[in-house]
Amino acid sequence: MKINQTINTNSETICLPDTKFPRIVIIGGGFAGLALVKKLKHKELQVVLFDKNNFHQFQPLFYQVATSALEPDSIVFPFRKQINGYKNVLFRLAEVEEIQPSSNTLITSKGKIHYDYLVLATGTTTNFFGMDSVAENSLGMKDIRDSLNIRHMMLQNLEEAAITCDEEERDSLTNFVIVGGGPAGVEMAGALAEFCKYILPKDYPEYPSSIMKIYLVEANNMLLSTMSDKASTKTLKYLKDLNVKVLFNESVSDYDGSQVTTKSGKTILAKNLIWTAGVKGLFPKGIDEKNIVKGNRIKTDDNLKVEGYENIFAIGDIAAIITEETPKGHPQVAQTAIQQGKYLGDTILKLINDEPIKPFEYRDKGSLATVGKRKAVADLGKFKFAGYFAWLLWSIIHLLSISGFRNRLMVGFNWAVSYFTYEKSNRLIIRDFKPKSSINHTNK
Amino acid sequence: MKINQTINTNSETICLPDTKFPRIVIIGGGFAGLALVKKLKHKELQVVLFDKNNFHQFQPLFYQVATSALEPDSIVFPFRKQINGYKNVLFRLAEVEEIQPSSNTLITSKGKIHYDYLVLATGTTTNFFGMDSVAENSLGMKDIRDSLNIRHMMLQNLEEAAITCDEEERDSLTNFVIVGGGPAGVEMAGALAEFCKYILPKDYPEYPSSIMKIYLVEANNMLLSTMSDKASTKTLKYLKDLNVKVLFNESVSDYDGSQVTTKSGKTILAKNLIWTAGVKGLFPKGIDEKNIVKGNRIKTDDNLKVEGYENIFAIGDIAAIITEETPKGHPQVAQTAIQQGKYLGDTILKLINDEPIKPFEYRDKGSLATVGKRKAVADLGKFKFAGYFAWLLWSIIHLLSISGFRNRLMVGFNWAVSYFTYEKSNRLIIRDFKPKSSINHTNK
Repeated sequence: MKINQTINTNSETICLPDTKFPRIVIIGGGFAGLALVKKLKHKELQVVLFDKNNFHQFQPLFYQVATSALEPDSIVFPFRKQINGYKNVLFRLAEVEEIQPSSNTLITSKGKIHYDYLVLATGTTTNFFGMDSVAENSLGMKDIRDSLNIRHMMLQNLEEAAITCDEEERDSLTNFVIVGGGPAGVEMAGALAEFCKYILPKDYPEYPSSIMKIYLVEANNMLLSTMSDKASTKTLKYLKDLNVKVLFNESVSDYDGSQVTTKSGKTILAKNLIWTAGVKGLFPKGIDEKNIVKGNRIKTDDNLKVEGYENIFAIGDIAAIITEETPKGHPQVAQTAIQQGKYLGDTILKLINDEPIKPFEYRDKGSLATVGKRKAVADLGKFKFAGYFAWLLWSIIHLLSISGFRNRLMVGFNWAVSYFTYEKSNRLIIRDFKPKSSINHTNK
Repeated sequence: MKINQTINTNSETICLPDTKFPRIVIIGGGFAGLALVKKLKHKELQVVLFDKNNFHQFQPLFYQVATSALEPDSIVFPFRKQINGYKNVLFRLAEVEEIQPSSNTLITSKGKIHYDYLVLATGTTTNFFGMDSVAENSLGMKDIRDSLNIRHMMLQNLEEAAITCDEEERDSLTNFVIVGGGPAGVEMAGALAEFCKYILPKDYPEYPSSIMKIYLVEANNMLLSTMSDKASTKTLKYLKDLNVKVLFNESVSDYDGSQVTTKSGKTILAKNLIWTAGVKGLFPKGIDEKNIVKGNRIKTDDNLKVEGYENIFAIGDIAAIITEETPKGHPQVAQTAIQQGKYLGDTILKLINDEPIKPFEYRDKGSLATVGKRKAVADLGKFKFAGYFAWLLWSIIHLLSISGFRNRLMVGFNWAVSYFTYEKSNRLIIRDFKPKSSINHTNK
């Protein structure tokens, strides 16, 4: 495949240095986009990375920011620091609004840009499945701002609870409902339960320790349904030991900001609702509707090329390679994203050099989830185990996966302090809490 | 002085535990309020601290947060962590809106509360001296949110500059004007100049290093006018060495967000304007107008009691003890605030026990200001010196003054990394930048 370079500088308003190499534009610097950038550094390509943030986010630890265990700066990493020294890579802070495949052009919030190759790595956002009342009053967990909003919702409501003399009001301010029994929901529930056990009695001596109730609502009849039965059973036990109330076969149908209503008609008074029960792809308009599949993902061939286009690719959570073996596409996790980013980097270089390419193959390296302190569950191939060792493994893997030496040091330091003292980082309400998720409703 | 305890629980909506001791309400947990709280811990008083934030702020290092040298969590400290174990001290997160001295009542954003003694320690906010165009388009530096807003303004404008092809637009995005040649302005200018020298070339290799221009505008003919001539002269030299353009005898008269106009008619293109040229007292309504003096401060007697009231006191930046020796009151600095907080703690305890009291005496422990890296000026009594040793002293004193062991460790760690590597913490745009200061315009 050869694509002629047809840069028309007149139509561009995003300023870029001149180059004799083809330009590859990557939208989104998550796990997939960043893995791709690293593969393409120092190559004969002009790589332009667009993101609406100036930093990469390490999503697996969002729940620790939400519960004040870590500060946001430890788990996000600026793109410009990442690409220091990558002379062929440029970062531009802008939101891409539209793709015009006929002219190989992107329309961004800051102007137009021409591409020779385009890679969509825009990821997913929270899916409230059309329930506006829930979307308006609850918080998702798909952006570092969501994590900060959860933290501030929690701390502000605990402060309000210290002020009110009305017991029912106080209960609703200190009750938490987490929807979704996947890894995000389980880890959040565990961390909240730890907060309740160790931090609450110290910071709020005026409350009884039983005051903060945590509910985990799961539509299915098991937690961590993508993991083994053993992982699921152990997780349930750990959460129950931490006094988390797990409701199976229940889903939330309505939420007015104070009262959660489930499909079966149950009601829970709670001013804190955290939604981890679904995601949907998020990408700019312009991709042919026929390529958009369930969960708002983009159907690609087994080289991650979007069908019907010669030079548009999709990787990470939004990409769906639908085959007989993977009728729902690959799992929407960091592992898939990183493997697809690396694969596509190699593949594009081969395409440019007219070398033969192989289809993408996913290697499942296993799954881990942590439940509160010093407990985790692990499925690593045939090895399925739970407890302290799984937690240690979880900690080491996550620590090594974080971008940047400084960040690793900060997270390690905070975890070490927390391990020995049960103390957490400063519990600060700096952002003004907005009772809305950062969800973008423009996609279906 | 004896004041009968007249708590009428019916009129209260802020929930507080019953007590047989008199209640002292402190509004504001800055240097003054916190020093007072520490003096009153474990005493036979119910101490209620109100603040609109849940944390104490270490103002002297705001400029380091603004320039990404430190993260906010290192220099703010939660009140609840501070008062852990102070059994007679309660914290309530609320904004006090009105004082009703006739009934010893406060009206807060969260309900009413009765006091036996009231202490105003609400500090100051940025004073734009009625220039609305400046207030609307520039940023002050009196709250941790201001520091974060400055950081985000700066990083967003540098990103915009990478996108535009228009040179004039790029200049205005990368030019900085700092108004006010006091310690805040000088330290901010020095830190920005360091950013320009060491960080800009690494993060933005696309720019020439000369691109970011820094102007410091001072209405008088000297910098750091409250310090010695030696400090002032050295500071000017250090700033010039860092390429900061210092304009004396100039003040800003208008600013539209892009162009700064000075009183003499000079114009500077700059989308970044930081205002450190004035403060004014900020406190709830209800204090008799005749007690309010220049700079919106509250006139007190030499025991810090507000004239005309038996049980209302003021400490810190808003308090003005006006005598022949101190016709303008004491300097509005951390030292004064801490000394007044400690003094008032002792004095109130003596008043309650009908013991004799002495007037407040201020002890000037000296002044320090840092200019960029490894340079500072110091006036310590007869000893006036400048350079590396002054900087070392500045660093040690500030490190020891920060609340909390964890915070000291974080700041020390960041400074050590920065000392050896010129690297700074993660430069993140997490808050959405709002081009307005957090100024409250309700006070005169």
